[in-house]
Amino acid sequence: MTPSARTPKQRKQDTLARLEHDEDAWVSTADADGGVPYLVPLSFLWDGATLLLATPAASPTGRNLRTTGRVRLGIGPTRDVVLVEGSVKTLEPAELPDGVGDAFAEKTGFDPRQLTTAYLYFRVSPQRVQAWREANELEGRELMRDGEWIVLD
Amino acid sequence: MTPSARTPKQRKQDTLARLEHDEDAWVSTADADGGVPYLVPLSFLWDGATLLLATPAASPTGRNLRTTGRVRLGIGPTRDVVLVEGSVKTLEPAELPDGVGDAFAEKTGFDPRQLTTAYLYFRVSPQRVQAWREANELEGRELMRDGEWIVLD
Repeated sequence: MTPSARTPKQRKQDTLARLEHDEDAWVSTADADGGVPYLVPLSFLWDGATLLLATPAASPTGRNLRTTGRVRLGIGPTRDVVLVEGSVKTLEPAELPDGVGDAFAEKTGFDPRQLTTAYLYFRVSPQRVQAWREANELEGRELMRDGEWIVLD
Repeated sequence: MTPSARTPKQRKQDTLARLEHDEDAWVSTADADGGVPYLVPLSFLWDGATLLLATPAASPTGRNLRTTGRVRLGIGPTRDVVLVEGSVKTLEPAELPDGVGDAFAEKTGFDPRQLTTAYLYFRVSPQRVQAWREANELEGRELMRDGEWIVLD
């Protein structure tokens, strides 16, 4: 039997817990010319307000993030999802604020600054966040809109 | 410790098992005009050669699949992924071959033909398939190219 739908407050707490503790996100991007989707799982670091990703500059995801500035992230299993629509700022490794590169390496277990392949970092600012488990949670799935949480803590 | 990389044959077997038994895929699409990715989990039915999806005709995923004919699917957890790049054929419910609508309803637990919202079905023909678990499996991740398995059974 499907459990009852969670309260908005519970969904926000569960969402923040996933952002804090989950290792990877499904990263969906689109090419700038239209019609070509890309999807790949990447590790991320959450700092309480934004997600940090890193991927090779020359990869499809790296190119798409840099040229379009848009991303849609899927976090969690498919029956307990957090979906994040975000705007993206590209950062060269040298532009990372003090300590952030180390924090990323510690959380994700890999340090792009140590690799010979040229990596870029991408800071994702969530604009829209949704969370649901089963069909009975589709109503009320919107937790953030236009970059603002619409559910109180 | 990360287990050793699987053989190509084992990866193909594991991939076919996921296609047969997994319930959902992360469905990544792009708008036709460029730059706007979309991502949502959907249930699917595998018939041994193609995946069948269904989603409302008016949803972003429905519009994107219909107008671009392209999709990228992520199946499995992020540390045991199957990635499918596919071409997409749109099917009205009335165009479904005999028995396919029933098979879809049985596998997924929902029957779009019974709903008041207008749904479309989408038949995904895989063109490229990749599978990997951890970084040591990135090499050899390609299992299908140009619609043909490059790994023997």
